[in-house]
Amino acid sequence: MADKLLSISRRTRKTPFTPLVEAAGVKGYTVYNHMLLPTFFDSNESDYWSLCQDVQVWDVSCERQIEVSGPDSERLIQLMTPRDISKAVIGQGLYAPLCDENGLLINDPILIKFAPDNWWVSIADSDVRLWARGLAFGLGLDVQIREAAIWPLAVQGPKAEELVSRVFGEAARSIRFFRSKMLDFQGHSMMVMRSGYSKQGGFEIYLNDPALAEPLWNELFKQGADLKVRAGGPNLIERIESGLLSYGNDMNFTHNPFECGLDIYMDLDADIDAMSLKALRALRGKHVHQLVGIVFDDAVEFDDFRVEADGELVGDVRSQVWSPRYNKFLTMVMMKRDFLADNSSITIDGKLGTIVDLPFDFGNIA
Amino acid sequence: MADKLLSISRRTRKTPFTPLVEAAGVKGYTVYNHMLLPTFFDSNESDYWSLCQDVQVWDVSCERQIEVSGPDSERLIQLMTPRDISKAVIGQGLYAPLCDENGLLINDPILIKFAPDNWWVSIADSDVRLWARGLAFGLGLDVQIREAAIWPLAVQGPKAEELVSRVFGEAARSIRFFRSKMLDFQGHSMMVMRSGYSKQGGFEIYLNDPALAEPLWNELFKQGADLKVRAGGPNLIERIESGLLSYGNDMNFTHNPFECGLDIYMDLDADIDAMSLKALRALRGKHVHQLVGIVFDDAVEFDDFRVEADGELVGDVRSQVWSPRYNKFLTMVMMKRDFLADNSSITIDGKLGTIVDLPFDFGNIA
Repeated sequence: MADKLLSISRRTRKTPFTPLVEAAGVKGYTVYNHMLLPTFFDSNESDYWSLCQDVQVWDVSCERQIEVSGPDSERLIQLMTPRDISKAVIGQGLYAPLCDENGLLINDPILIKFAPDNWWVSIADSDVRLWARGLAFGLGLDVQIREAAIWPLAVQGPKAEELVSRVFGEAARSIRFFRSKMLDFQGHSMMVMRSGYSKQGGFEIYLNDPALAEPLWNELFKQGADLKVRAGGPNLIERIESGLLSYGNDMNFTHNPFECGLDIYMDLDADIDAMSLKALRALRGKHVHQLVGIVFDDAVEFDDFRVEADGELVGDVRSQVWSPRYNKFLTMVMMKRDFLADNSSITIDGKLGTIVDLPFDFGNIA
Repeated sequence: MADKLLSISRRTRKTPFTPLVEAAGVKGYTVYNHMLLPTFFDSNESDYWSLCQDVQVWDVSCERQIEVSGPDSERLIQLMTPRDISKAVIGQGLYAPLCDENGLLINDPILIKFAPDNWWVSIADSDVRLWARGLAFGLGLDVQIREAAIWPLAVQGPKAEELVSRVFGEAARSIRFFRSKMLDFQGHSMMVMRSGYSKQGGFEIYLNDPALAEPLWNELFKQGADLKVRAGGPNLIERIESGLLSYGNDMNFTHNPFECGLDIYMDLDADIDAMSLKALRALRGKHVHQLVGIVFDDAVEFDDFRVEADGELVGDVRSQVWSPRYNKFLTMVMMKRDFLADNSSITIDGKLGTIVDLPFDFGNIA
């Protein structure tokens, strides 16, 4: 497809950072949770090297925080996920599949226990608020559910810790992965978590006052000038190299967590009241597809994302990118397990691809 | 904002018509229900005149059909809307606000009674499927809820009836507004309804076999050549001139139907079991905002969509466009009713605007 313009309106919501993102020269957006998500500023490849070598600031406000509070909040959160949330501590983030009663994926958020009886569901791209509210109404749960006035800003890259500690103080350095601290910016306290949608290290700052968007952005760029800080966004090359999943891309509401390799994020033998538990126990070992990587030496043209073997459809290409670091064409493909049982490679478009587990292990591939 | 590219991926789903839309030279998309919606092909204004004078074919597959079937289907549909659906007949479409227990808008779909115990919710841009499934699970309803394999294609414009009757036969001409017939295309039956997101007249064809997307598209263009048929999409100029609301733009989940002038689509005194009924009855006459038009002779620059009077925020601009037909700048604004009670005009950016009811009445304005 040739380049197409995005028609922007109030429905494709802007964020408190949008004017700053625009001033920084954003060239592309996608729409995520009905909100603008910057995708690239220079080019995917130039942005990639900056992210891997230095530090970037990302407007990820589209990671909307669905706040579930009230006496039944933990009960509702546990109902929605097959991951045991009972041991979560305040300020902790848990990556967790949300699954319906058939074990199919509704979303794959970070669950954050912000306070007792107050959870934040930091969502991928589907209206979890509507599902949670439907469940709560139907079950008569004593909860309040709202999209919180929180706009995450990510600081990602090897120099992220240096930059965040300059702006929020040395305390940031001791934050462990998926843990957070309430830290001060210009007299205002906000949550800072070590997390983010890259494997280059970094933090997410949960901005809770839109009036501070500009001062915070500007301070990060001022303090980061010598670190070569740049504006960025989730980077297609980096996230595929790192094997980070994207709901809606790599999997959707027709897939279950086994198919996506999310087994370790489920506690199917725990004594928890998750609505998906029965279905997922029954599915264990019996799922039809598996998300895998297929690595090619050259770029491949797929016909409508189809992966065929002997004229038969055996897989569906969900994500693909050229890796400038490894000089490989990386694809993430939902493959039939029947085919995987007997094959470790496949030829597409005349090119031989090696089938590998995710995340990619470039020590073995290169 | 300068033009920005849309980063397209599997998450921004294509439709069976996307290759045809691309071949027709689409220049812009928006994302709607996680799906590509073409917005313009030549320019907004050129597309507008074509729509108003001739006939266009629109890929509105993004109007996803949430199919609710089973013994409790009518009960669930009625629960979700304050409009009385009990008198709907097979094949009828009903524009209906969906409201939560607080009376706030979840969506504003066309409800279609496709068959006994089989409803289609032809949705605007929010995941109604998740809300419906949450409610059904929580209440233990005996329903199946799925996104149906249906891709609507709209034929809109004054010559739409001629074109559709050439392709589907003369029976199309007798279809009344928001009624439908199952009509034949190349031996295959599909629903054709007189409806669509313009006031230029036309139909929506509910394609139920993706393999027929190309033959149907090509036949419409072949039969419509002398009618000057063009590819198009919901047109910003036309829909605002016509006062057609857009969920997410003109109103969202913070608004109630009174604020949007949807009073006639509610049956608040009926004996129906809608979850919003109590809240909406209590809100009657007490809502804070009202969606109105403000008409200017010249284009106006708003500061962050704010409408201020004497330094006080009195309104929020939701949609705006220059009308080439009327030479007016048209805005749709969610205004405080307190202000409306005492004012019929307002000055913004040094320009006087006349406040009018929606839809715009150009007989009075011009």
